[in-house]
Amino acid sequence: RWGLVVSPAAERLRHILDDDNTPTPTIFTEMDTLQHEGGELEWKESARWVKFEEKVEEGGERWSKPHVSTLTLHSLFELRTCLQTGSILLDLEGYSLPQIVDDIVDRQIADGLVAPDLREKISFVLLRKHRHQTKKPIHRSLADIGKSSNTASSDTASGIHCSTEDLRSRQASSLGRLATCLKYVISPHTLPPAASLLCQLKNKFMKKIPRDAEASNVLIGEVDFLDKPFVSFVRLAQATTLGGLTEVPVPTRFLFILLGPHGKTKSYNEIGRAIATLMVDELFSDVAYKARDRDDLIAGVDEFLDEVIVLPPGEWDPKIRIEPPKKVPSADMRKSVLNLNELGQMNGSAGGAAGGEDEELPAPHELGEELKFTGRFGGGLWLDIKRKIPWYCSDIYDGFHIQSISAVLFIYLGCITNAITFGGLLGDATDNYQGVMESFLGTALAGTVFCVFGGQPLIILSSTGPILIFEKLLYEFSKNNGIDYMELRLWIGLHSCLQCFLLVVTDASYIIKYMTRFTEEGFSSLISFIFISDAIKKMIGAWKYYPINRGFKPDYITAYKCECIAPDQGESSFFFSLHVFLVFKFNLTDLDWSQLSKKECVKYGGALVGSSCKYVPDLALMSFILFFGTYSMTVSLKKFKFSRYFPTKLRSLVSDFSIIISILVFCGLDGLLELDTPKLHVPTEIKPTRSDRGWLVMPFGKNPWWWYVASFVPALLVTILIFMDQQISAVIVNRKENKLKKGCGYHLDLFWVGVLMAVCSFMGLPWYVAATVISIAHIDSLKMESESSAPGEQPQFLGVREQRLTGILVFVLTGLSIFLAPILQYIPMPVLYGVFLYMGVASLSGIQFWERIKLYLMPPKHQPDFSFLRHVPLRRVHLFTLVQIVCLAVLWILKSTFLAIIFPVMILGLMVVRKLLDLIFSQHDLAWLDDILPDKDKKKKEDEKKKKKDKKSVEPESDEEVRGKLCLTRAPDFIDKTSNFRNKQTHLC
Amino acid sequence: RWGLVVSPAAERLRHILDDDNTPTPTIFTEMDTLQHEGGELEWKESARWVKFEEKVEEGGERWSKPHVSTLTLHSLFELRTCLQTGSILLDLEGYSLPQIVDDIVDRQIADGLVAPDLREKISFVLLRKHRHQTKKPIHRSLADIGKSSNTASSDTASGIHCSTEDLRSRQASSLGRLATCLKYVISPHTLPPAASLLCQLKNKFMKKIPRDAEASNVLIGEVDFLDKPFVSFVRLAQATTLGGLTEVPVPTRFLFILLGPHGKTKSYNEIGRAIATLMVDELFSDVAYKARDRDDLIAGVDEFLDEVIVLPPGEWDPKIRIEPPKKVPSADMRKSVLNLNELGQMNGSAGGAAGGEDEELPAPHELGEELKFTGRFGGGLWLDIKRKIPWYCSDIYDGFHIQSISAVLFIYLGCITNAITFGGLLGDATDNYQGVMESFLGTALAGTVFCVFGGQPLIILSSTGPILIFEKLLYEFSKNNGIDYMELRLWIGLHSCLQCFLLVVTDASYIIKYMTRFTEEGFSSLISFIFISDAIKKMIGAWKYYPINRGFKPDYITAYKCECIAPDQGESSFFFSLHVFLVFKFNLTDLDWSQLSKKECVKYGGALVGSSCKYVPDLALMSFILFFGTYSMTVSLKKFKFSRYFPTKLRSLVSDFSIIISILVFCGLDGLLELDTPKLHVPTEIKPTRSDRGWLVMPFGKNPWWWYVASFVPALLVTILIFMDQQISAVIVNRKENKLKKGCGYHLDLFWVGVLMAVCSFMGLPWYVAATVISIAHIDSLKMESESSAPGEQPQFLGVREQRLTGILVFVLTGLSIFLAPILQYIPMPVLYGVFLYMGVASLSGIQFWERIKLYLMPPKHQPDFSFLRHVPLRRVHLFTLVQIVCLAVLWILKSTFLAIIFPVMILGLMVVRKLLDLIFSQHDLAWLDDILPDKDKKKKEDEKKKKKDKKSVEPESDEEVRGKLCLTRAPDFIDKTSNFRNKQTHLC
Repeated sequence: RWGLVVSPAAERLRHILDDDNTPTPTIFTEMDTLQHEGGELEWKESARWVKFEEKVEEGGERWSKPHVSTLTLHSLFELRTCLQTGSILLDLEGYSLPQIVDDIVDRQIADGLVAPDLREKISFVLLRKHRHQTKKPIHRSLADIGKSSNTASSDTASGIHCSTEDLRSRQASSLGRLATCLKYVISPHTLPPAASLLCQLKNKFMKKIPRDAEASNVLIGEVDFLDKPFVSFVRLAQATTLGGLTEVPVPTRFLFILLGPHGKTKSYNEIGRAIATLMVDELFSDVAYKARDRDDLIAGVDEFLDEVIVLPPGEWDPKIRIEPPKKVPSADMRKSVLNLNELGQMNGSAGGAAGGEDEELPAPHELGEELKFTGRFGGGLWLDIKRKIPWYCSDIYDGFHIQSISAVLFIYLGCITNAITFGGLLGDATDNYQGVMESFLGTALAGTVFCVFGGQPLIILSSTGPILIFEKLLYEFSKNNGIDYMELRLWIGLHSCLQCFLLVVTDASYIIKYMTRFTEEGFSSLISFIFISDAIKKMIGAWKYYPINRGFKPDYITAYKCECIAPDQGESSFFFSLHVFLVFKFNLTDLDWSQLSKKECVKYGGALVGSSCKYVPDLALMSFILFFGTYSMTVSLKKFKFSRYFPTKLRSLVSDFSIIISILVFCGLDGLLELDTPKLHVPTEIKPTRSDRGWLVMPFGKNPWWWYVASFVPALLVTILIFMDQQISAVIVNRKENKLKKGCGYHLDLFWVGVLMAVCSFMGLPWYVAATVISIAHIDSLKMESESSAPGEQPQFLGVREQRLTGILVFVLTGLSIFLAPILQYIPMPVLYGVFLYMGVASLSGIQFWERIKLYLMPPKHQPDFSFLRHVPLRRVHLFTLVQIVCLAVLWILKSTFLAIIFPVMILGLMVVRKLLDLIFSQHDLAWLDDILPDKDKKKKEDEKKKKKDKKSVEPESDEEVRGKLCLTRAPDFIDKTSNFRNKQTHLC
Repeated sequence: RWGLVVSPAAERLRHILDDDNTPTPTIFTEMDTLQHEGGELEWKESARWVKFEEKVEEGGERWSKPHVSTLTLHSLFELRTCLQTGSILLDLEGYSLPQIVDDIVDRQIADGLVAPDLREKISFVLLRKHRHQTKKPIHRSLADIGKSSNTASSDTASGIHCSTEDLRSRQASSLGRLATCLKYVISPHTLPPAASLLCQLKNKFMKKIPRDAEASNVLIGEVDFLDKPFVSFVRLAQATTLGGLTEVPVPTRFLFILLGPHGKTKSYNEIGRAIATLMVDELFSDVAYKARDRDDLIAGVDEFLDEVIVLPPGEWDPKIRIEPPKKVPSADMRKSVLNLNELGQMNGSAGGAAGGEDEELPAPHELGEELKFTGRFGGGLWLDIKRKIPWYCSDIYDGFHIQSISAVLFIYLGCITNAITFGGLLGDATDNYQGVMESFLGTALAGTVFCVFGGQPLIILSSTGPILIFEKLLYEFSKNNGIDYMELRLWIGLHSCLQCFLLVVTDASYIIKYMTRFTEEGFSSLISFIFISDAIKKMIGAWKYYPINRGFKPDYITAYKCECIAPDQGESSFFFSLHVFLVFKFNLTDLDWSQLSKKECVKYGGALVGSSCKYVPDLALMSFILFFGTYSMTVSLKKFKFSRYFPTKLRSLVSDFSIIISILVFCGLDGLLELDTPKLHVPTEIKPTRSDRGWLVMPFGKNPWWWYVASFVPALLVTILIFMDQQISAVIVNRKENKLKKGCGYHLDLFWVGVLMAVCSFMGLPWYVAATVISIAHIDSLKMESESSAPGEQPQFLGVREQRLTGILVFVLTGLSIFLAPILQYIPMPVLYGVFLYMGVASLSGIQFWERIKLYLMPPKHQPDFSFLRHVPLRRVHLFTLVQIVCLAVLWILKSTFLAIIFPVMILGLMVVRKLLDLIFSQHDLAWLDDILPDKDKKKKEDEKKKKKDKKSVEPESDEEVRGKLCLTRAPDFIDKTSNFRNKQTHLC
């Protein structure tokens, strides 16, 4: 019913756009206005458009910030009239400005629009020289030189100069950008030394213009010899560089000229801005390229008018320059609507988009085919390998980028801190069977292998909490039962490796599909909280380790001392003395007790007496300053990217290296104060921490045979632990927000983790799985943003620098740390805890769960415009968040008990909770707050359809309605209305 | 020429707006759409407008943030057609909804727009109940109850209920808001207990609606029995509360009804939004109130269309909700333009404003008539008194506000810190002739007197640096020449007092007029820098005062001790021992040297031996943490005002009390750690610091008589010093940015400063002048912002709470501090230095000079859109800033030498530099960067005129041109064009 009425304008547009589907070049528009300068007329650049408007601030002699062109409706209508009445020259053969001007004036005279006697005057005005912003134009200085050498024809010098220059340039234009640029430098006169510099300056702006761009020049001026406006729209048959007409060496394709009588400059300028804005409009520029006649252009204007957005005068100040939006809708939508209108067809996607925000639904949670259940033996693994092989070369060379250096240093420091922390804890838990040395070697080995062969090399392997707890329990068990720990551990590792292989070949990883944002967020928030709380705990530890002497009065320093007193030489200590004598080979009585250090004193059985013994000055406060300073400086430097100061490149460099800079600054501060803060100490020699173990564990001999079989049971726990830990981290890394392009490899990842389990077990090294927080930090430090093309366009997040190089380097460096010890010992531990705190906090940000928690504290009117808030009632959002918080709290409490070992299993619990949420929340709400579970997905779609049918009778967003709306907005009546202006002579034109 | 062509629309508008100049009420618009809910039809609120649009997020069941209504051009044209074809009922006598609906349908039938058989159906639909956002509507629950009691007429229950209710409400409406609200509570049925609560809830939004507001209701719906739209625009003769039609108890004046066939909901909604936006437009609502017929309304739409701002579709995403701007242009401009158009007149102000940004010049620097040279004896003083007397009462009661508490505490802490600092320094400089006690008493006395009687009670008096240096030099001079210091000082004070009086009666303060922003900014930046550098110096002092033991190893604590060793009992110390014996009345040999404190040890001549003697643990770092913590917490809490969290009131409270909160937090932290950080110690007893002086200085007797005369010369220096210091601070306080309304009193201020000079000299107290930084802090802490009226409107800076109460309280508290000593001793000095740092930094912000310095570090494209940058070339701006920086550097260097005493005279030097700048910079540039000097002002205006004349020929901004532009934009041709639609039947209407 609605689709049958087609307006002439839409019909026209559809015709010209459909007939010739070739893409058209991008247009750069420059608007010049006629000015009196020093008694002479000249064209002065007043604004330019790549995508947004940049105005020349006349007084400020500078470019304004790029902004959205706010036009008046009036100027658009006047432009329309101008195009109706002025002369339109399409596909004019033009090679120089004078010739083009001649043709234009000829046409005007032929059309009877100007009197023939004005020809000279109009040509004279149009051939005045052009002055551009940002520089003293080179062609002008050349013209000046020319003037001084032959002063006779000074008046037309620039014009003539232009034309000769143009002839040459036209030939040169095919040689590309460089040649065109050189043209500015090569001149018939002496070459000014600054020319090459200017060329460069120009090129700086040139970068912002796409390579294939063509220029459109808008010339607006007031003259005293005309009594009605002189309007001309010219499209050249071929883009031609017309001398100094354009600020940058971009060939001109379009010319719009408006000369008029005095007294309406403002209005003329507005018309100029209107045509300039139209020319950079994607759809209109297409029309301009393909227009066959005047009416096509008018139809283009009508289409534009039909799509404009109107701001009411009472609610907006036109003087405000609107900053370019983050994203603009693509013109394809408008084009497709043009087609739809005629065809009367409506496909779902276009309809959904046109139907407005209410119809939108979040894109479904898609893990892609990486997690499809193939049903074949090792089918998933095979697909993973096939998927990753083609990227292997690029995985290496994509890593060569300055950002990688920062990422490597950052992650390296995270890794060795982790290695030392876990190494220390493991050493405590296993009586040094696995210590710091094993931790370093294991990290280096496992990490390097995984990064070289793994499916997702962005994942960083590390020791994790649950594994630590398992090892602790296992060691206690072996000790109490007289079983050899290392051998038992080897068998558990082997079993676990086999079980992993089983999971790999059966494509078991596909169950990860059931892990929705709810589970993911719960897990990663928990890990982040653990990071944060660990960092803070360490700091509080420092306060206990270095107690502050609270009541200390500087004046009573004389009362503070700590002396080592020799033990009573009574009978009870005789044996002790003997022991000391035997062990340390000297006699206690020979000791000068007052010269002993605190440790020595305790060692030899002396007593520390004095009020200052238990206090350590300055170190607690200094640790706090280092910790908090590193954290806050990193945060501020990260934010520095969005500051106004310094050029963008420098800022993003500082932001990328923020962690390294902060670490260096606070290491420097620490060095300056020369305080004995706890430092990073890495082992300096490659040998097992415990001297009674070697680098290889033998599988047989120490335990009864049935342990080799029985270790299958604990291995099962380890396997679940590893599977969950590894795959959830992988899901988080592979999130679609990260825009990874090279695909992932869940099965391949698990395969290598299994292999490494076995290897590490044989070598007596700790076991490794994906570490969520460090992997997120790795991704964050490798994020890429587009260099903004048009001025004012926002840089877009492009994806992550996916490669293997950073990971490999991190782990090779970790291995080499043993040789880097002399450098690393200058790094205070509180600084590294600060980095940990930052990692934890940073991995929280951007999680929707965290955003939703913040909503609790915000009054509704201040809440950000999240799309889920537009679609889900606030109390439902709060309820959902509350469920998540409760789950997290429960997990946290469980984690703090011995149940921590079944921690990964608890993640399965989260998935059950999520399943139960289906009962409380509607699928619609869940689609916004979470993702739909796979089996519900289908059901949901059916629901939607059903709902739609129900709606159709009354509710707005039915298909039919959308179609109706479309026809209405692009309705022929409106186009007809504006077409009415055609025959009406307006005041101006 | 241009003014003569008048469009019919403009003519119409001018007529109706001119004939009846009475102001019309503000309009609140609510848009309801027809929805199927549970099988029943009902009207559901979908958006509302006070000034900006608030949409009901359907899914979210919440109000969107207020935003600018972005309309489509199409919907505006369709609305226009609707108004042309629909029925317009102006001044309908309506008392209830059913009656009004009857009248509307009658008219439609009479006009032949609907078939008579549809009457029932239309009435039925229009009388469906209304459901509003934010609450379960009370009238609905009442209707529900009604339904349950008499189920028979359930279908029309709400309609009937409405009408009976309305009759009652109409009588009640004259009783004002309360009665209208009560109406919701009083019901024919049982009263639900939640009713009064709901009433309150409603009132929360009611606050945002002006008291005199009237409602306009827009009803948009799709029905199946119509085949073409049913449009009606109704203006009631009197605003009437129509039951539950409107969400808040605001009487309805306008009704717009659009019912149409199915399939175009989106389009109908857009038309509804268009009329709603028009109704809240200031000009259109005027037109709507005063329209005599349909054509008047159409003319209003045309005027609106003529003023709309258009955003190109390719540069803006219509889905983005535009935040309301800080300021919108007033509709008066549009009104005046309407008049101008007809009268052909053009006055400067309207022209300037209409001429756009380029024509703007910064408002001239006006110190008002406060600094006019009266030429009469004491004429200025008399005018000052006359000006201030009428405000005296309000000066007291304006102080009663919660903000005052914060201001008093903040300034009080600043004052006592200052008093202690300067007291200590003065004590050092004058051998305690003036010490901390005198400083406290003097501050309290001088401050209280000034705040009670002064011309500008916002100024805070304090000791200042130059005075301190003068006193120091004077004391040294007296001591070296055997002159009595106190008596000499008294005479200098008396002479200076007389000289001040002389300056007062001769209106000498008028020369302050020559002090432009250049001088002002130079002075206040310098003072701010001094504050900042002093605060930092004090902190660095702490590091020297509490040296950190850098190489300390906790393990070797046994090697650290500090012992007091008795002096050698040799002959040389015999006399010392005797001295100690005589003074301290005990024998040195009786001493247990090891029990002595550090100070005692030194006192009795012992030697401190040991490696820890010269170190103080923790205090330096703790001081730093307190200092930096206080500063950064204050800064963050100040910024908290702009955060999204917590309700606005709480946030502004936190922001107002930020300094107090930070001080309390860090005092608490200090208390918690129990470290011996330096604390604020105020004297606890009222007696002169030096026991050999009394509270009154006798003028005669100690010095030769000629000193009484000669002291005239140093007094001259003091007078200049005081005059400059006082008056520049006053100028800074009275800046027009501060929007002070009660006027100032330069002469009166100086008079009281003179009186206090004499009084303080007699009592031997320090001299006091206005303290720039503390005065600025005082003003900052008393700034008022408007409570935003319409949702989305930005709060405006209204001015400063001008009153005497805070000042008086501050100084009374300072006086009482002697009794507050037990509380004050818990405040650590580093916290107060942090406050000082904050004061210095805060007084820098908002200074244009500082903003310009920042520009050096910003690439041009990131620079903020300062108006001076639009008008003055960047390099000129930078040059100007550089001159200021050089001046400041010179002043800083001079200040650090003995020349500090002529510091205020150097300000005169700044004024000379400013005078010289006239030679380098054009008056145009200076007008933007600085102010024009008074004598140049006239000249400049002439220049401008001349320039304008020159411009007229080519340049855009001449008067004539502006007029031309005006006529063009509001040109009749455009209005005519749109008027063409009138007779064209569109698809929709």
